[in-house]
Amino acid sequence: MSSQDRTVTAFAPASVGNVGVGFDVLGHAIDGVGDRVTLTGIDGAEVCLRSVAGVVSELPRVPEENTALRALLAMQRRFDLKTGAAVGIEKGIPMGSGMGGSAASAVAAVTAAAEFWGLDLTPAQRLRFALQGEEAASGALHADNVAPSLLGGLVLCGPGDPPTATRLPVPAGIACVLVHPQIEIKTRDARRMLLPKVDLGDHVRQTMAISGFVAGCYRGDLEMIGRCLRDFVIEPQRQGLVPGFRGVQTAAMDAGALGCSLSGSGPSIFAWCAEPDAAAVRTGMLGGFSKEGVECDAWVSAVDAPGARIETVG
Amino acid sequence: MSSQDRTVTAFAPASVGNVGVGFDVLGHAIDGVGDRVTLTGIDGAEVCLRSVAGVVSELPRVPEENTALRALLAMQRRFDLKTGAAVGIEKGIPMGSGMGGSAASAVAAVTAAAEFWGLDLTPAQRLRFALQGEEAASGALHADNVAPSLLGGLVLCGPGDPPTATRLPVPAGIACVLVHPQIEIKTRDARRMLLPKVDLGDHVRQTMAISGFVAGCYRGDLEMIGRCLRDFVIEPQRQGLVPGFRGVQTAAMDAGALGCSLSGSGPSIFAWCAEPDAAAVRTGMLGGFSKEGVECDAWVSAVDAPGARIETVG
Repeated sequence: MSSQDRTVTAFAPASVGNVGVGFDVLGHAIDGVGDRVTLTGIDGAEVCLRSVAGVVSELPRVPEENTALRALLAMQRRFDLKTGAAVGIEKGIPMGSGMGGSAASAVAAVTAAAEFWGLDLTPAQRLRFALQGEEAASGALHADNVAPSLLGGLVLCGPGDPPTATRLPVPAGIACVLVHPQIEIKTRDARRMLLPKVDLGDHVRQTMAISGFVAGCYRGDLEMIGRCLRDFVIEPQRQGLVPGFRGVQTAAMDAGALGCSLSGSGPSIFAWCAEPDAAAVRTGMLGGFSKEGVECDAWVSAVDAPGARIETVG
Repeated sequence: MSSQDRTVTAFAPASVGNVGVGFDVLGHAIDGVGDRVTLTGIDGAEVCLRSVAGVVSELPRVPEENTALRALLAMQRRFDLKTGAAVGIEKGIPMGSGMGGSAASAVAAVTAAAEFWGLDLTPAQRLRFALQGEEAASGALHADNVAPSLLGGLVLCGPGDPPTATRLPVPAGIACVLVHPQIEIKTRDARRMLLPKVDLGDHVRQTMAISGFVAGCYRGDLEMIGRCLRDFVIEPQRQGLVPGFRGVQTAAMDAGALGCSLSGSGPSIFAWCAEPDAAAVRTGMLGGFSKEGVECDAWVSAVDAPGARIETVG
């Protein structure tokens, strides 16, 4: 079989970046929605966009502006590969949704490409290539979407270069309700609007919250997780971007959620809750958006959802 | 036996507040140095200072300015107690040392008083009364010295009112070297000098560090603890208060410490290390201070040191 006939497809899930309490630090995978990347062998050494399908109809064709292509180029350069590929991207994640779409495309591309090019990569290497891809979208290296989309579950991104990622234990029976109102926010814009400084008091409250949240996960202590799943720093600055944010959050909490905040830079809103409360939390959140006349999609997922995987090899 | 004859003595250990990575959030107890408070029955309902001994010769006699007396008054008021006490304070912790001396006096007072007055208090109640005492010294409610002095070990202070305190697991074999240069820094002054704002980038780095540190403690992962025991926010602002700080820190790290920073608001400096490295770390740190011509005391303690306890009841 010549390289022109080879086809590999990989899927990478959407993710909730920040998880409210951990701006640029925490993220977790979402089951049931994600991006799919297919690499097909071509004659020649280039990497090019062949097709875009799914909920998005157009993506940048310039490799440096496309998170999937950019990740593939980084791999090609690193290993001095002479084999090119045509890239098909099937987007399940809407653009500018705060669901880690650019990260998922980069992760799916790296996952497919490792198989396609026969590279035996460590998780740390995969993380690094996918991050180099995602840099195209966010303008910075943040692993809080890439790491959970790659590894699955709830992931803590560590300090240092290269970035580190540690999976945290998630207490059994915690679900995430993710609601996506059909409006678009550009990550880059949502980042630019942030104040360059944080009040010292808010900084202390937030470090208390995130460290208590991590301890709560290890202890399997839902009460502690609920008490700590709070954002004192970013949410107050960004909530105005999402019509009806406070109403949706209040509805989620009234329906029994442990915590509720922006997914990534929004507009999607997530809530963590005990599994039996998920249906009521979902209904409450959708009701909050419908008061604003905003159309929504919604997903209910385990927090400990699986990460990227190969789907087909042909 | 009339109440005039009763005597209760309690001991409360010194503590390392902040632990570098968790300003106002983390603290741990230190073995082998602390304050001792003795309550003796008197005729009448007042609480008064009878004696001061140890490394400090004078303490405020006005109850509202004395952390031990203030805590006792809070208990008296809360339970409407008609029995007074004469209070003897034996300070093992130097004033303005950054070793949690005001907290230890308040904790020892509450511990002795619960026994003296026959009150069956929960740890949360003890914490609250001791905090009301410590407010006299710091001008604010921070549990990062009071909680470890009371409970022992490494303690995470949670958000919310009333404050919460959670003991974290400490990997076996971690020691703390604590060096106290004989200069004095007032907590209140060290707090006033802090900038009211934190750079967003430093905020993110610090939340990464503290959450990784907590995860490292639960995982028993010394490498992760070492990577995360860093202070990007407070240490750069306060290090100038301590002559030779950088030299002492470098000496500790060169001798194999996992991390080294200011204890509380200084001038004491602590280092965490594997037990076999403690002697070398101690020697390095003392050498750093001796280059500056500063006299020092030093202690080596388990991080998981015991908390406050009753010593004698008569």
